This record gives sequence, structure tokens and C-alpha cells, in this order.
Amino acid sequence: MTQQTVKDLYTHLDQLTGTVELTGWVRTIRSSKRVGFIELNDGSSLANAQIVMTSEMANYEELTKLPLSATIQVVGELVATPKAQQPFEIQATAITQVGGSDNDYPLQKKKHSYEYLRTIAHLRPRTNTFYAVFKIRSLAAFAVHQYLQDHDFTYVNTPIITSSDSEGAGEMFQVTTLDMNHLPLDDQGQVDESQDFFKEKTNLTVSGQLPVEAFALAFRNVYTFGPTFRAENSHTSRHASEFWMIEPEMAFADLTDVMAMAEGLLKGVIAYLFDHAQPELAFLNEHVDPELIDRLQLTLDEDFARVPYTKAVELLQAAPVDFKVPVEWGTDLQAEHERYLTEEVYHQPIFLTDYPKEIKAFYMRNNDDGKTVAAADLLVPQIGELIGGSQREERFEQLQQKIKDFGLSEEEYQWYLELRKYGETKEAGFGIGFERLVMYVTGMSNIRDVIPYPRTPGNAEF
Amino acid sequence: MTQQTVKDLYTHLDQLTGTVELTGWVRTIRSSKRVGFIELNDGSSLANAQIVMTSEMANYEELTKLPLSATIQVVGELVATPKAQQPFEIQATAITQVGGSDNDYPLQKKKHSYEYLRTIAHLRPRTNTFYAVFKIRSLAAFAVHQYLQDHDFTYVNTPIITSSDSEGAGEMFQVTTLDMNHLPLDDQGQVDESQDFFKEKTNLTVSGQLPVEAFALAFRNVYTFGPTFRAENSHTSRHASEFWMIEPEMAFADLTDVMAMAEGLLKGVIAYLFDHAQPELAFLNEHVDPELIDRLQLTLDEDFARVPYTKAVELLQAAPVDFKVPVEWGTDLQAEHERYLTEEVYHQPIFLTDYPKEIKAFYMRNNDDGKTVAAADLLVPQIGELIGGSQREERFEQLQQKIKDFGLSEEEYQWYLELRKYGETKEAGFGIGFERLVMYVTGMSNIRDVIPYPRTPGNAEF
Repeated sequence: MTQQTVKDLYTHLDQLTGTVELTGWVRTIRSSKRVGFIELNDGSSLANAQIVMTSEMANYEELTKLPLSATIQVVGELVATPKAQQPFEIQATAITQVGGSDNDYPLQKKKHSYEYLRTIAHLRPRTNTFYAVFKIRSLAAFAVHQYLQDHDFTYVNTPIITSSDSEGAGEMFQVTTLDMNHLPLDDQGQVDESQDFFKEKTNLTVSGQLPVEAFALAFRNVYTFGPTFRAENSHTSRHASEFWMIEPEMAFADLTDVMAMAEGLLKGVIAYLFDHAQPELAFLNEHVDPELIDRLQLTLDEDFARVPYTKAVELLQAAPVDFKVPVEWGTDLQAEHERYLTEEVYHQPIFLTDYPKEIKAFYMRNNDDGKTVAAADLLVPQIGELIGGSQREERFEQLQQKIKDFGLSEEEYQWYLELRKYGETKEAGFGIGFERLVMYVTGMSNIRDVIPYPRTPGNAEF
Repeated sequence: MTQQTVKDLYTHLDQLTGTVELTGWVRTIRSSKRVGFIELNDGSSLANAQIVMTSEMANYEELTKLPLSATIQVVGELVATPKAQQPFEIQATAITQVGGSDNDYPLQKKKHSYEYLRTIAHLRPRTNTFYAVFKIRSLAAFAVHQYLQDHDFTYVNTPIITSSDSEGAGEMFQVTTLDMNHLPLDDQGQVDESQDFFKEKTNLTVSGQLPVEAFALAFRNVYTFGPTFRAENSHTSRHASEFWMIEPEMAFADLTDVMAMAEGLLKGVIAYLFDHAQPELAFLNEHVDPELIDRLQLTLDEDFARVPYTKAVELLQAAPVDFKVPVEWGTDLQAEHERYLTEEVYHQPIFLTDYPKEIKAFYMRNNDDGKTVAAADLLVPQIGELIGGSQREERFEQLQQKIKDFGLSEEEYQWYLELRKYGETKEAGFGIGFERLVMYVTGMSNIRDVIPYPRTPGNAEF
């Protein structure tokens, strides 16, 4: 007799025999006078083990009254049940309560709204849906690391606290140790930032791209995978104030390489999930999004189309649809446009390339037409933009000019310019919002439901 | 003829033949009238490729004057050189400069101090030492993920921005979007935190342990691996303001399980590095720490000792050493004591267990003696404390009492107490300071030299 997990039992269904001992939590109980059934979950798998108890057990009465989520130890005989819904059950010979719970346990057996479950973020991973979501989140994160390490990418932890500004990427959070009720002031009566912890004003990072570029010029292929922050007062289902980004960066690479690597990475993650998250994907496909597995299979099978921005604008202008925001060449596309292109026109993920330079970041490489930059965004059904990539402007003078044109401080970007000054190299990279990716591979439609403890305006609980 | 990397050539030494094309950066050049040698690095490996050029090339003169770190494309014949220092060289037929550099390139061929290199953090990964260190950092991070995923641990991204206090773990950084020069005040003239972004005061996390414990009670085995922060004005070689922590947490586990898992994880990482970082370890062993590989081999081979705190105090009191801080039962051990035990007494990593409860955190489980808690810290040579672990207090009343005894707010820890109220379960976990681990496996003695862009008091550059 050995201590086993429920996962062990499901993994070795062909060897199901003998006495087992399990410890786990009561998920459900139903009982009659003579026989009772406990669904036992021990955290090792989404699936429960069915425990059968009978009134011959001395503590049967007591067991039937166990509160949900009580911790019990079960000793019993494994019996294969090939004709039942579950492949086996455990006919208990002894069940001992080893940990308490309470009858006011919030996760009673009924349907709870996602909104309610967000208020008990410390308990919601015990539900099937959130178990599946956060298991997939974990597996997807590992798949990203494995794919990139297998392709000779070096992982770099770029800083979270930064003295840089955001390159126009969005509002930032300030980080300080000054006592806000007793701020030190300078001669002009302004806050004396030189007395702060870092002797200057610091913020939370919005992107690790620029700092990781320095490492691409040493390691060739590099990536970041860490938290980033936006202090925008945005209350949509796709925005969080704190989220994780994956930012691969490649020296000696151009926009074509970016698209190939981004497509390979996304497909690699999906393939890994098909191999390692079958029960979770099946559960979500049944209960959350009936098109999930088909959509992922399609993503895996199809070659992603490459569509220039200019052509996309033509398609959108010719579309028999009244968009809320009309499209003309030079405007940034909205989620409604992105989703129309990928869902209605191409029915698959597409790369939109060569955007007008005015609507993209300063570090993107100018195309020869003088109007566009070598950018490529991946648009996917349900989500819209999932990946944003570009070839970087590696030519010193052009980069210097763009820093000026964008009204940025050349002094602040001196170190970034030096990357070009010493070893100017063709270079390209992309960024994936990890939570968007998790939404795509789980079918969840609100970003708050794919983050363990989401941070949004007004909400930093737990 | 195909575009290859230097790593490809070293990986397939037995197939070295024919024409190759490489693109990379000039690391060194030396030349005479008729022949010249370029050490080419393309980021794919620590090792360079030796390029031989001759005065028969039309642009020979020009090439001999290339500044260091210029980007060149080389076409040439591969020639095995079994008797030379390097296993092959490339006899160039054409070399083209594809990217510029400058003669004031800061990394000229001479020894630079670590202090100087920290001021050019964007360029130092191009040196051999930092290439080796940051490559090992990347491989070690991946080894951690792989080991834990292989052992059925679920990765959880606990929040960076938190409204919790630090449980006494240290000073915190405040996160705000308030305009510090125009702060909103409340009735009492104090800063009105309800007008801040999250409608309350928020800080950067010091640990993901408490939030991840909630997930251990759903997934059984979980871990965090993310940045944590300490706003301490500490200027030692072992402390940074921003560093990454690995925090595994296991339901149904006790202190023995913690020690077994921590020992297995550390050995797993070292074994992975022996398999995947041979050149980097050999370089660091030769140039940075001549005992590095022996120490890691010993760590891999030996069973770590388990030593109760009480016995350690006896050993230290009997030691023929004048410690700066004298030891008596009940005092926290200092680095000098930790290193004496592991370096002079045991000559290997040791777990110190069962510390006095007053010097450990509130969440650690009380031992039956009424004086100590079920804690285990791993001490290693050169570093001191590398891992801190404990069995968690899972008994509701005892935990409630400890929250009171430590002067913490029961209201703030209500959700944490609920983890015990609903599904009280034996549980244990540990934390590893990732930078300490990287120091241990690289032999680097200053934490600033194992972090891409270190953050310390007064320093948040790049």
C-alpha cells in the first residue's frame, strides 16, 4: 500500500488493482442510508476520484455530513468500472478526516458567476474552470520557455523598476520610498526626487524590449518573459494594469524571420498543450467555448497569411460592414477591424505588415517607401492583436532622427544609440501579451479570469 | 553554401568541411603584412571562430583596420586544425563589413574591472565573463522550470503590485499614480490614498508565498518564479533591491518533504548545467573561481546534512573562532556563522532546522516543544543561506494566535485564514533567491554581476 495521487491512478489505468491510499479534499458528497459517494480531488488532476462508502463503516453517518472541502484520507480497494462514466472507483475500507472545513464554504455545488468568483480569487482555483485555466497558463508558460530554449534563445530578466520613460507605450506607475505625507522639496518647491531611493524618479516598466536588445547584440537570440505594467484607467475585458509579456529579440534577423519565429512559437505552444493539457482543453471546450479546440487545431494546421496594411485598409473600406470607426490609410486599426479581417475575411490568424510609420514606435525600421515601417502584428480570431513585431532601425543616423522626430530625449537613449554605434546589426523582435495568449488557448473572454490575482483600476486585493 | 552559426560549427566538428558563411562581430584582430586573424563571435556560443585573411584579398588593408565590434560577413573554407588551440579555422575568401563600429569602443582588449563594466551594463554581456554568467542564468532558470514541471508543479504568477504589507519581510516600495507635486488630501490633511490608482495604498511584493499557498490548496504542488523587491538601504555584495525568487509550495507535505524537494531541485539545476553549460562553467572555473566545478560536483554528489539549530548553536559556541557577533540560543545566525558551519564544520551544504519561533515568520508551524518552529534553511559554502523553507501552520487557531502574537492585522489576513478554515491541510514550501543561486553556480561574488541591469540604492540606470 503506497500513498498515491489521483493523477497516478488515471495515468496507470491498465494497472489499476489492489489497495490504495489517497489524501484530498471533498468536492461533492451524496449519500443514501446504505451507500454514499464522495468526489475526491487531491490537486494532482482536474479529474476527481470517486470514493464509495457504505453504512458498514463505523463513521458512515459522520462522513455523510462532512462539509465540502474537508480534507480526508481514504484507504480502499481500486475497482475498474469500464462501463461507468469514470474508469474506476475506490471502495473505501476506511475514511479519516484529517483537516476541517465549514458548512459556509463559498463554493457550494452550484454555478457561480465569474464576477462572484473574482471576489474569492484565493478559492476560485478550486473550481474546475479555473483549475483548467491556470493549469493551461502554467503549461503554456513552460512551453514558451522550452520552445525558445530549444531554438537557442537566452532568457534575460530585464528590470522591472526603471528610470526610463515609456517610449509612448502608455501611462506608468511611479515607484517611490518617499513618505508622501512628508515629501522633501527642492529650491523650487517641487518634490526633490534626488532624495528618493534611486536618487531619481523611477517607474514600473512597460516593456523589456530596449534593455533586452543589448543582449541580442551579445547572445544573438534572446527573450524576456516577465511582468509589465500600464497605469491606464481602462476597464475593458482585454486590459489589465499588470500583465506578463514575452519579448523575443534576434540579431541578424529581419521581418520575415520575426513572422516565422512568432508563428512557430504560437504553434509550438498549441502543440505542447495538445500533448499535455488534453483534459483541461476538453473541459473548456465543453463548458466555456465550444469552438476552442477547432480554433486551436486550425491555428496549428494553417499557414498564417501575410497581408500588408495598405491591402487591409482596402479590404476594410470595401467591406459590407458599418464599422464604428471608419478606416482610412494612416489610421490605427481598432479591435473591430482586426477581428473582421481575421474572423470574416481570412478565417485564420494573419500577419498585418508595413504599417504607416506615424502610428508605430520610434524604434521600427523605416521602409524604403518613406511612409511605412517594417512592422508585423499577428491578429487572431476572438482576440484581435496577439503579437506585435518589427524589424528594428539599426542605422545610427536614421534612429537618431526618429528619436528626434518622436520628441524623445537623445540623452536618455544614448545607451540605446550606442548599441548601433558599436556593432550595428540587422535585428528584429516581437512581443506577446501572455494573458492574451492564455485567453486564446483557453477560450476565456475576460483577462481578469486568466490572471491569478488580477490588478485593474481600483483592484489590488490579496 | 548555407548561413551557419559558430555554434553549429563547434557542434558538428566531425563534419567540418566545405564553404561556410558566417555573420558576426569582430572580437579581436591581429595582422601582419601578409596575413591576419579575426576572432569572430556571432552570439551563438562563448567560443569564437578564427578567421584567417591574407593580403591577397582586395580589401585586406581596410579589414586590418576594422574597429572592434564591427559586424562582418565572412565566406570561407573550413579547415580542421586538430593541433592548434581551436579545432578549426576559416580561411576567408571574402569578408564584407555589414555594420559599423567605432574606434572608441569601450571594450578594448584588456582587463576591465567589474566596477567599470557595471557602468556599461548594456555592453558587458559582450565580454566572455558576462556571456558565461548570463548564459548560465538563463539555463538555470530553465532548469528550475523543467525540474518543477517534471515533478508536477504548477507555475503561478503571483501579483507584483500588492495591497498587503510585508509580513515583516522588509521595507517596501510604494506604487502610485498620484502626482507627487499635487497630492490630494483627506479631511485630516493626509494623502488621500482612496484617490490613488487602486483606491488604496499599494506596494511592490516582497514574496509570492502567501498568494501562492491558495493555489497549493487547489493544485497540490505549485511554484512562483518572479521578481520581488526590498527597499532596504543595504549596500552589501549580496543584496539587491530587485531580485527574482522561486517559491515552491506543496500541499500534503511536511518539513522532510521540503528538504527532499529543495535538495533535489538544487541538484537538478547543477546536473542540467553540467549537461548544457560545460564551456561556460569551464571558463568561469579558469578565470573567476578555481573551486567552482569541484564545489558543484560535491554539491551534486553529497547528501546534505540536517542539523538542528540547537546543535548548530552548540557547535558555534565550541568553535575556536572569534565571531564578530557572539552566538547564543535564540539569536539569528549571521553570514559568518552560516559560512563557518557549512565551510569549516560540514564542508558541504547543510539544512539547519527547527529555529526559535521568535526569529522566524508567523506562518511557520509551531513544533511541539513550544519553543521552535518547523523551519529549514539551506546553507551553502561561499554564499551562506541559499534556501529558506518551512512547514506552514495549518491549524486555524494556532495561526490566528500567531497573527495576533506578531502584531499583524487579522482582518488583512482573513483570506489567508480562510485557506485553513476551508480545507485545512498539511502544507510546506520554500524560497530560493534566484540571484544567490546564480552566484553559487557561477562563482561570481557580487550580486550586481549576476543581474542584467542591477537595481540597488541610488541605481536604476538603463
